[in-house]
Amino acid sequence: MKQYAVGVDLGGTYIKAALVERGRGVVQDVSVATEADQGPEHVIARIAGAILQMRAAVPEDAIAGVGVGAPGVINWARDTLSYPPNIPGWVSVDVKAALTPLLGAEIPVFVENDANVAALGSAHYGAGIPHDHFIMVTLGTGVGGAIIYNDRIFRGATGGAGEIGHMTIDYEGPIDRSGVAGAIEAYLGQRFLSAHAADMLRTRTDSLIHEMSTDPDLDDLTPKMLYDAAVAGDEGAREVLAWAGHKLGCVLGSVINLLDIRKVVVGGGVAAAGDYILGPARRTVLRYVMPGLRDDVEIILETLGNEAGMLGAAHLVFQYLDEHASLPPRSS
Amino acid sequence: MKQYAVGVDLGGTYIKAALVERGRGVVQDVSVATEADQGPEHVIARIAGAILQMRAAVPEDAIAGVGVGAPGVINWARDTLSYPPNIPGWVSVDVKAALTPLLGAEIPVFVENDANVAALGSAHYGAGIPHDHFIMVTLGTGVGGAIIYNDRIFRGATGGAGEIGHMTIDYEGPIDRSGVAGAIEAYLGQRFLSAHAADMLRTRTDSLIHEMSTDPDLDDLTPKMLYDAAVAGDEGAREVLAWAGHKLGCVLGSVINLLDIRKVVVGGGVAAAGDYILGPARRTVLRYVMPGLRDDVEIILETLGNEAGMLGAAHLVFQYLDEHASLPPRSS
Repeated sequence: MKQYAVGVDLGGTYIKAALVERGRGVVQDVSVATEADQGPEHVIARIAGAILQMRAAVPEDAIAGVGVGAPGVINWARDTLSYPPNIPGWVSVDVKAALTPLLGAEIPVFVENDANVAALGSAHYGAGIPHDHFIMVTLGTGVGGAIIYNDRIFRGATGGAGEIGHMTIDYEGPIDRSGVAGAIEAYLGQRFLSAHAADMLRTRTDSLIHEMSTDPDLDDLTPKMLYDAAVAGDEGAREVLAWAGHKLGCVLGSVINLLDIRKVVVGGGVAAAGDYILGPARRTVLRYVMPGLRDDVEIILETLGNEAGMLGAAHLVFQYLDEHASLPPRSS
Repeated sequence: MKQYAVGVDLGGTYIKAALVERGRGVVQDVSVATEADQGPEHVIARIAGAILQMRAAVPEDAIAGVGVGAPGVINWARDTLSYPPNIPGWVSVDVKAALTPLLGAEIPVFVENDANVAALGSAHYGAGIPHDHFIMVTLGTGVGGAIIYNDRIFRGATGGAGEIGHMTIDYEGPIDRSGVAGAIEAYLGQRFLSAHAADMLRTRTDSLIHEMSTDPDLDDLTPKMLYDAAVAGDEGAREVLAWAGHKLGCVLGSVINLLDIRKVVVGGGVAAAGDYILGPARRTVLRYVMPGLRDDVEIILETLGNEAGMLGAAHLVFQYLDEHASLPPRSS
């Protein structure tokens, strides 16, 4: 019998929801404005609306549950989301309790960190499929991370594991948004990478970046511009991405030493420009891994886009079904 | 009924074996010369001899199994030890297969990395008892590490997890024995710490170190001397240990960010001088942990000495018994 779940990606601008069929992937999806300025209760109603839209596509009771991926702090029980940084005024909401009456049925609801669900999506639908264990790194506004061990999220003591972005590679280096010196985010986070690129390319007037930017000081430079310029053959942009990839390789060496997990999947908005970062990361990483752990180290590009998060969120439900397969079905 | 196992600590100079009673600890122990220069087969016979001595103390069949802790590479099945760095000529030996005929009975035999068994010993008999999850750091010739998660060793993909000593805190820093730049071992490993201390204290002729050392250049300085001098009130020695503790705090911040495991147990030969390292580590660590993970971070001194390894090695057997509790007993 086909299994379905709804995976939700709760962003500050859009709520995306997908109807996911187990083993197959996204059957259909929808995107609605978050309208975060109207408060948490309104946002919850928007989420419920998106879920109901997805549920309407299949027979009643065909949906086994709902998974929601969001940035912020998730509790161990995976029902409560606190301080999502992209939704002002949202302190702490029991998402499961808030959604249940709006869905008109008591189905399993799980909330999980966005980096974690992206990794779980990769594990079951993306580049992570061949690997039981891998490290996920997501390059975006910040640098997200997650640990997949035995095809499941490694959650640590309280559910907060995987914060690779705040691991230091230089204890006297530049300070990231969390106040950590030399954290990898202070090199590869969007704001930091853009600022470094502007510094590196400002005087290289032959760089394509100067055609893309409308600011002579390059203050509007974005990682996307860098990626596009690199793909278009720009040497300066490629050098900046190689600088970033070298830093990524350093931190991944530390991660591999600590975990003996040797596969790394890199996602986020890098897409076609990925190898301009991953190539240098691959050359660097082994120099930061101790000899006994160097075999089989691999850094792979995730080709799933934003749907990785929705797929992973939905997979939380399928995983729950597996764990409870021997129990009688829940009454709805 | 009382459960017993024999825990063995396979060192380059001595083989130590203890009869361990579950929940109580070491009942008796023995230490014999390893005689490593006579080859692996001889060493295996020495290990068997020590085990048989321990077994003689209790009724026949009272020993549920044997655990062996050793430096080197351990396979996933925990039966084979390869390249123990302190036993020349030992390539790869199936310790379980080699010991079984010498023990005259088919009992469970496990080999595990020495840092891992020390951590498991701490988890069940030492400073780790109150904590389900913790990071173990062992300061010695190198810097050993292990991860305890749900009171068990987290082994990674192949059994090699926990190599905190080779995690970098400065990607352009000094090179450790594994060739990793800025690895924590390149600051706190015995050779590195001694060399740094000699550099720092050579011209501080008022330091007690100059009375302990027989070399005006302090080339014979050891961490033990530093510890003793610090305990005796020497300012110079305390400054060096504070420098080391600061570095330790940096790497522990990275570990906590990645694992969301917030308890750290530090063992090794530091004993009474521990707080001269751990105090500064405690002050530093939070600056390298992201805000959401800073609560409840604790760095604790292990008070078990070398017996931690033997206790943990023995515990591998008790853990095995628990896992197989529902199966009929093995015939011997």
